[in-house]
Amino acid sequence: MAVVTNIDPKRRKPTADALQDLIDLVADDLKAVNDLIIQRMHSPVEMIPQLAGYLIASGGKRLRPVLTLAAARLCNYQGDRQKSLAAAVEFIHTATLLHDDVVDDSDLRRGLASANAVFGNKPSVLVGDFLLSRAFQLMVEDGSLEVLRILSNASAVIAEGEVLQLITANDTETSEQAYLEVIRAKTAELFASACRIGAVVADRPPAEQAALSDYGLNLGIAFQLVDDVLDYSAAQARLGKTVGDDFREGKITLPVVLAFRRGNDEERAFWRRTLEDEEQHDGDLDHAVMLMTRHHALRDSVERGRHYAAIARDALGLFSDGPEKRALLNVLDFVIDREY
Amino acid sequence: MAVVTNIDPKRRKPTADALQDLIDLVADDLKAVNDLIIQRMHSPVEMIPQLAGYLIASGGKRLRPVLTLAAARLCNYQGDRQKSLAAAVEFIHTATLLHDDVVDDSDLRRGLASANAVFGNKPSVLVGDFLLSRAFQLMVEDGSLEVLRILSNASAVIAEGEVLQLITANDTETSEQAYLEVIRAKTAELFASACRIGAVVADRPPAEQAALSDYGLNLGIAFQLVDDVLDYSAAQARLGKTVGDDFREGKITLPVVLAFRRGNDEERAFWRRTLEDEEQHDGDLDHAVMLMTRHHALRDSVERGRHYAAIARDALGLFSDGPEKRALLNVLDFVIDREY
Repeated sequence: MAVVTNIDPKRRKPTADALQDLIDLVADDLKAVNDLIIQRMHSPVEMIPQLAGYLIASGGKRLRPVLTLAAARLCNYQGDRQKSLAAAVEFIHTATLLHDDVVDDSDLRRGLASANAVFGNKPSVLVGDFLLSRAFQLMVEDGSLEVLRILSNASAVIAEGEVLQLITANDTETSEQAYLEVIRAKTAELFASACRIGAVVADRPPAEQAALSDYGLNLGIAFQLVDDVLDYSAAQARLGKTVGDDFREGKITLPVVLAFRRGNDEERAFWRRTLEDEEQHDGDLDHAVMLMTRHHALRDSVERGRHYAAIARDALGLFSDGPEKRALLNVLDFVIDREY
Repeated sequence: MAVVTNIDPKRRKPTADALQDLIDLVADDLKAVNDLIIQRMHSPVEMIPQLAGYLIASGGKRLRPVLTLAAARLCNYQGDRQKSLAAAVEFIHTATLLHDDVVDDSDLRRGLASANAVFGNKPSVLVGDFLLSRAFQLMVEDGSLEVLRILSNASAVIAEGEVLQLITANDTETSEQAYLEVIRAKTAELFASACRIGAVVADRPPAEQAALSDYGLNLGIAFQLVDDVLDYSAAQARLGKTVGDDFREGKITLPVVLAFRRGNDEERAFWRRTLEDEEQHDGDLDHAVMLMTRHHALRDSVERGRHYAAIARDALGLFSDGPEKRALLNVLDFVIDREY
């Protein structure tokens, strides 16, 4: 299994470095993207840059715009268009985060008070709308109908995925397949589009556009699966991050799906009480983690993630070796092995 | 004053007919638009067409898409592009209504339970996002970057206007100028864009595009001003519509701005208690209407609306006479004189 790089200690590098390597590779472009983000979230209505800036500055990994920049480099693109399009991708992502936190009644985001907790739900909804509109303005300035097509489709699919998640929320009988459809729509589609755009601006043939899209899609699925595991992870707690947000919100993620299906009647009653009825007591989160551990639900969710990372790895087979390709491949290890 | 057509009874026609005349003029196109709206709000996620359909089918006047269709006819446009773009305009409008009702905690919309009251705030936020994305998909299919530019700008300006309204909400010292900036952004900009697009698809010169945009902008301001008056109107109550929604929500509209500025200290204390502190008792709405009547705040708000309608009328001066131009001019009277 090519993706399990930590079997051979000589090959292994700390996975946090793998993300940093990718970021370093596109550092100049990323600085330009960050400047553009600051510049273009401006509005005469001061609350807009205040609220948008609060979220945008609060320590996101900028993973999606970094992917656009790296994909463009992988395709030997020499122009500047990837920068404003990477900013558009980040604006779409930020808009969905803002609306997500409102929909989930979340108080925390990346370990800090969420924008809706600080500014209220109402401005969060409206500033999300503003950022989505601003993303389309950036794309219109770029002038590519193909990019507009890709990202307007992604934006509609994300919204569909969010509604689907809302409907399946608190349903402990959600199937793994149904869950995968949700995260494919709400998370992986934007990863796929972010990567594809790198090939589109470079005017690469359809097979390479599809390859980068496939890489992004499968990376996105793996990313979300591991994110779901980390919400129950002791490593998270060690890093001072909150654990159990998904549990408290009654969110059905893959570790729950697996633990529920592998559990006995008594265990299923526990999941129904805590996640469907959202009747939770002290110690329930610990009990949930114990049940997940008993049924290897966390370990196997990471294993499922490894499967998608392997598909992403092979998707890049068309591209010749080089620092960009190596960095994109190493990020797959980061996504699987990360502790944050 | 050309707009006061009801001075001469021979010239006057019932204003409700004026809107119907415009609708009749574009009836075939409007049917196609309605079919397209039904078709394109479809999603495999059933809640999306259910929720979107609830609002879209609940008796809106389709004023904005009708304006796009009529503007295209006024410009002698012979193609079909105006239909999908009119649907895009209606999707943007519907998305803003959905988010508006969430932001305002509104229970009613057009005299019916609002979508958020029936389906909840969460799906309303997400289906709004879906419809906005779908609007951009329709524009991308149309393929005009100019239209995409116009409507992505409008969409950003609308969001700015909504945030501005949120900030000035409950502030009884809001100036008329500040209030006008809000309605210009949140309402009139989309009217302007809806009309301009008719000239853009017909490839008319910039002066005619600007003329239709100016017509729409000023029509939109007049429309919103009269809408604000109708919320305090006895005629509304006679028609079985709710009155006082804005008052109960503490919304500052032009009748309030005028009554507050023209009132004495005791009256201002009343407005502060009811709208800033939102401490309302039985009889307060009647008292508010009494104060507005005492200071001619309702009558003068309609007069202000007449001013903008007059600008809209002159904006169409470039176009030669014909049924479309007459219908668009008569709609200005409808917007001012309507009782609903």
